[in-house]
Amino acid sequence: MQQFASDNQAGICPEALEYLLKSNDSGHESSYGDDAWTQRVCDRMRDLFQTDCDVFFVFNGTAANSLALASLCQSYHSVICHELAHIETDECGGPEFFSNGSKLLTAKGENGKLTPDAIEALVTKRADIHYPRPKVVSITQSTEVGTVYTVEEVRAIAAIAKRRQLRVHMDGARFANAVASLNVHPSEITWRAGVDVLCFGGTKNGLPVGEVVVFFDKVLAEDFAYRVKQAGQLASKMRFISAPWLGLLDNDVWLRNARHANAMAKLLHQRLRDIPGVRVLFEPESNAVFAELPNHAAQAMRAGGWKFYQFIGAGGCRLMCAWDTQPETVERFAAELRSICIA
Amino acid sequence: MQQFASDNQAGICPEALEYLLKSNDSGHESSYGDDAWTQRVCDRMRDLFQTDCDVFFVFNGTAANSLALASLCQSYHSVICHELAHIETDECGGPEFFSNGSKLLTAKGENGKLTPDAIEALVTKRADIHYPRPKVVSITQSTEVGTVYTVEEVRAIAAIAKRRQLRVHMDGARFANAVASLNVHPSEITWRAGVDVLCFGGTKNGLPVGEVVVFFDKVLAEDFAYRVKQAGQLASKMRFISAPWLGLLDNDVWLRNARHANAMAKLLHQRLRDIPGVRVLFEPESNAVFAELPNHAAQAMRAGGWKFYQFIGAGGCRLMCAWDTQPETVERFAAELRSICIA
Amino acid sequence: MQQFASDNQAGICPEALEYLLKSNDSGHESSYGDDAWTQRVCDRMRDLFQTDCDVFFVFNGTAANSLALASLCQSYHSVICHELAHIETDECGGPEFFSNGSKLLTAKGENGKLTPDAIEALVTKRADIHYPRPKVVSITQSTEVGTVYTVEEVRAIAAIAKRRQLRVHMDGARFANAVASLNVHPSEITWRAGVDVLCFGGTKNGLPVGEVVVFFDKVLAEDFAYRVKQAGQLASKMRFISAPWLGLLDNDVWLRNARHANAMAKLLHQRLRDIPGVRVLFEPESNAVFAELPNHAAQAMRAGGWKFYQFIGAGGCRLMCAWDTQPETVERFAAELRSICIA
Amino acid sequence: MQQFASDNQAGICPEALEYLLKSNDSGHESSYGDDAWTQRVCDRMRDLFQTDCDVFFVFNGTAANSLALASLCQSYHSVICHELAHIETDECGGPEFFSNGSKLLTAKGENGKLTPDAIEALVTKRADIHYPRPKVVSITQSTEVGTVYTVEEVRAIAAIAKRRQLRVHMDGARFANAVASLNVHPSEITWRAGVDVLCFGGTKNGLPVGEVVVFFDKVLAEDFAYRVKQAGQLASKMRFISAPWLGLLDNDVWLRNARHANAMAKLLHQRLRDIPGVRVLFEPESNAVFAELPNHAAQAMRAGGWKFYQFIGAGGCRLMCAWDTQPETVERFAAELRSICIA
Repeated sequence: MQQFASDNQAGICPEALEYLLKSNDSGHESSYGDDAWTQRVCDRMRDLFQTDCDVFFVFNGTAANSLALASLCQSYHSVICHELAHIETDECGGPEFFSNGSKLLTAKGENGKLTPDAIEALVTKRADIHYPRPKVVSITQSTEVGTVYTVEEVRAIAAIAKRRQLRVHMDGARFANAVASLNVHPSEITWRAGVDVLCFGGTKNGLPVGEVVVFFDKVLAEDFAYRVKQAGQLASKMRFISAPWLGLLDNDVWLRNARHANAMAKLLHQRLRDIPGVRVLFEPESNAVFAELPNHAAQAMRAGGWKFYQFIGAGGCRLMCAWDTQPETVERFAAELRSICIA
Repeated sequence: MQQFASDNQAGICPEALEYLLKSNDSGHESSYGDDAWTQRVCDRMRDLFQTDCDVFFVFNGTAANSLALASLCQSYHSVICHELAHIETDECGGPEFFSNGSKLLTAKGENGKLTPDAIEALVTKRADIHYPRPKVVSITQSTEVGTVYTVEEVRAIAAIAKRRQLRVHMDGARFANAVASLNVHPSEITWRAGVDVLCFGGTKNGLPVGEVVVFFDKVLAEDFAYRVKQAGQLASKMRFISAPWLGLLDNDVWLRNARHANAMAKLLHQRLRDIPGVRVLFEPESNAVFAELPNHAAQAMRAGGWKFYQFIGAGGCRLMCAWDTQPETVERFAAELRSICIA
Repeated sequence: MQQFASDNQAGICPEALEYLLKSNDSGHESSYGDDAWTQRVCDRMRDLFQTDCDVFFVFNGTAANSLALASLCQSYHSVICHELAHIETDECGGPEFFSNGSKLLTAKGENGKLTPDAIEALVTKRADIHYPRPKVVSITQSTEVGTVYTVEEVRAIAAIAKRRQLRVHMDGARFANAVASLNVHPSEITWRAGVDVLCFGGTKNGLPVGEVVVFFDKVLAEDFAYRVKQAGQLASKMRFISAPWLGLLDNDVWLRNARHANAMAKLLHQRLRDIPGVRVLFEPESNAVFAELPNHAAQAMRAGGWKFYQFIGAGGCRLMCAWDTQPETVERFAAELRSICIA
Repeated sequence: MQQFASDNQAGICPEALEYLLKSNDSGHESSYGDDAWTQRVCDRMRDLFQTDCDVFFVFNGTAANSLALASLCQSYHSVICHELAHIETDECGGPEFFSNGSKLLTAKGENGKLTPDAIEALVTKRADIHYPRPKVVSITQSTEVGTVYTVEEVRAIAAIAKRRQLRVHMDGARFANAVASLNVHPSEITWRAGVDVLCFGGTKNGLPVGEVVVFFDKVLAEDFAYRVKQAGQLASKMRFISAPWLGLLDNDVWLRNARHANAMAKLLHQRLRDIPGVRVLFEPESNAVFAELPNHAAQAMRAGGWKFYQFIGAGGCRLMCAWDTQPETVERFAAELRSICIA
């Protein structure tokens, strides 16, 4: 049954699966990425972003973010991020582990977004060697609360980062949803806006497993392949990690998947916003709806078999739509909730 | 085309693939291992090993070994292993990275195997705090040169380890091939012989991706789930990593795959041993044949499209058979080589 | 000139210096702590604390705290501390570095002190593997804002720690000042109250260099000597680090030094509290006075050659007294400030 | 009593002690290196080396070497050194710990010295990402077996390093003894020969505690101060670490101390070489004599109160002379040994 617990509870989308199967038909293939499938995906990524970037495959988002950040700073440096950033709240200290101790400096910010002022405040707060020097700013696109940085917002952050000699990392576990939401070319909110490294999420977009780390500044990617290998993130049968990306990239399925999930969130939002007692917390800009439900209603829905998380950070219930969420599921969820709330 | 470069160049075996597809049919599933497929594999592992062990899924062998070792020692401890061990020669410092600095102490040993005497010599060499204290002995089963520790050999190593208060880790990237070769119950060369932690390889046995870490001493597994998460080794869509194991476990396909690969190595060995100029280096006990080929022959074979590695450590060419290696491929390879050598 | 910038700007107290010189007279001595001076200090520490504890010497407070914490948790665990704790604000990520990534979870708390409730809130906030599990609570005695935990407060924290299976670490960079302030036996606020490990500061009490890590639970000290060595904290000419402690321990000079510094802070407080425009922020319980000075007054004092820090965390100016602070210096400082403020 | 166990068993030389006492007379001093004494030593180091280098103070040799190496490579890189190098054999995995996993690749080499050929062999052995990429070559001057690299030898190593894009690190725990032995300007065997970073040992030359890390390439020193702080190597009362260096630098006391120790080793060698049954293993070029003593003789000498180490690596007994070793002690040692051997 489709649910609203997380977009990582959805399965593999048909197009990705097709390539996974196809890549298995080719018999023996060179391992560790030295195969034609992987090469093809890398080239397609460069086409997609319209620039000569370096592309690496890793197994999941924690690894993608942690390795990318570790490559941008040393252990005595720090990373500026929003207090709700996934790297801060849900990776069990992964960034600190991979970087051997880099500290995350967190800032508050409305709608789950960092602001240039908040970054400036953190950079200028201390200038002594007793506190780790900020070296990276990390933004999540789309954010943990379902909002999206506009092109201008990314640019403004990158500008202050440049002025303060910070590298810009984008946690794009739901990058597709942001691009779909903004309806811009993916380069517009990445390298053209000043992003140095993008962690481009595949799993939540329909892959079985795997994310991509894209270095727009190739100098920063030096020896990153060694880092990936040492960190246990280099797949031997790489084709099964890489080939499914072709399913997402062909015919812009990644965008179609994202647009669909976003649309389902919009629909859900429309159905929820006028249910008595329900308060939507953020205007949904991507594939998540955050809403406060009356306690008894949340309980009743869960008792009825619905799954969703209640988050302390942002507050409220998180209702996450996936590439496969069906309108009927949304309607049924809304209808059941409405009937409970007006009872 | 099938090759002899590595068993990780083979594809997904049909039974594993079937479960991967099945697990995708179930729509949304709880993530991070909190799903029925994963639970089922864990239970099946406990059945297989006939003991109440703790089972964890990780993405690859470097991660399996490194995380297991890191859980058995601290940064100022050391790990005793054979000088040809994969953890020493082919994981780019992964064990040192995950353990934050544990040193590997290597020993020579015939046929790629550690001996109790070699372990004893390393343990007793130093007893001062200027050298990292040995805390773990790691053996590879089957070894990097295609040999297999007998039950007695594992027991003898575990005995000296116990006496010296060392934990015993088994790198079982090709564990199946060893079990098939020895024709013993898997418990006989693991916990019944004194092994504390086994890294049980799935990828080389026919999975697309993924290995299993089995803790026979459950106390050692405390908080290991956190370690896996922090290290970027926890799959969100876990079912796609776990469910395919059912394909291997049902009807002992894992053993069938291993027996087949071993048999192909034996066949290859038979065909090679009397080719003039070819010298087989080790009696093949699992799925690898190491042989010295005349230089011009190796070159000619490669020019003819054959792929295989030449290793400095063990010397010679490594010809690795996989679950899908066909007798015809073996015969063709041998025939071509013979014709080159006798020309 | 004596100053109020920090107690680590003071020199070596005569009694410590005498032992440093004495220990140099003995010609060659065994290195790395295998000498009679070091042995003697360890025994004296056991006498002082009236228990059979394990004692280690390290070079400074960052190392003492970081190594102690690293020995109490793994990289995927977390340490609960006050948001103004030195380990959080002034060790440049040292604890994260030595522990290979353990996260510090900070709590607010009046007068720079952690409370049982704040600890409980952090422990119970999350129970999933996506967030590092709390394993240690660290308290600073005396605190960064010059306050002191009472015996009852330490006991209450240790009780909640015990209940939640957390180890208790005490950052005692100014432990002497706390003991002097409370006028209790040092065991009363350490092991008798439930503290597992104490970092006992020597430098601010009159030593040239060096702190001591005291493990009251000797099991926790297993292989800590290796940890110290690997981390570059084992002095070869150890006697010069250890022997000066005898100068502090003989005749309770450590307490005399601390009492004096505390008394000077009290005097300073008395002189400052009724100066117009000056607001003392905390009732001084040890050797620091925090006070808000009128901006022009702070500037004028600095222009006049006085040195003191202005802290963002606690706010206000920190005026720190040392073992050698003279009453005349206090009086002169107060008089100059008064004349500026009433001008 | 003076001994031959280690030059780190000697005390503080008078000139260093004098400055330690002087620096204590100045009352309060800025901490963490922001004092005049420290500034003065840094300037004097630049004078000494005749170049604008960056100078950092750390507490001991393990820290100096480990931090320097960590600044020259990442965790997935490797460091080439001699198999008898202190960083390999006596720092308990310190380099691996501080670098978060960099592997040491060791080479054999006569007289404890690395050769260009050995370096070349290690660099060219592997070129795949499964093995950590060599990034640094580390040489010990003088070596662990008391030999000294000539200017030409250092240059030749630096040349191959440059060609292979390796940084050159010099472990100079006994740098003074090497300079004294070669009778060259210290710049001749460091930056003028191609060394990037020197760990300049003070402790064995007569200091109570402390080594200096000298970056001849200032770009490599970027943010090294943060690294030192985070790693617990920044002294708060820095003057007591730095000022004693002035005692060594004034009137070239460091060279006088080294020359004396070297001369004592030469004397010892002369006295030992013709004692029946004694075999000197290396021509002493600095302050150590390695000699094989008859077993009963070694035992008898130890029973008579003499202290010296027996090393597995190089073999034989190590007799180490210090800045304070007296000719009479050498003569007495030799006479006693002779009488035992000819008995």
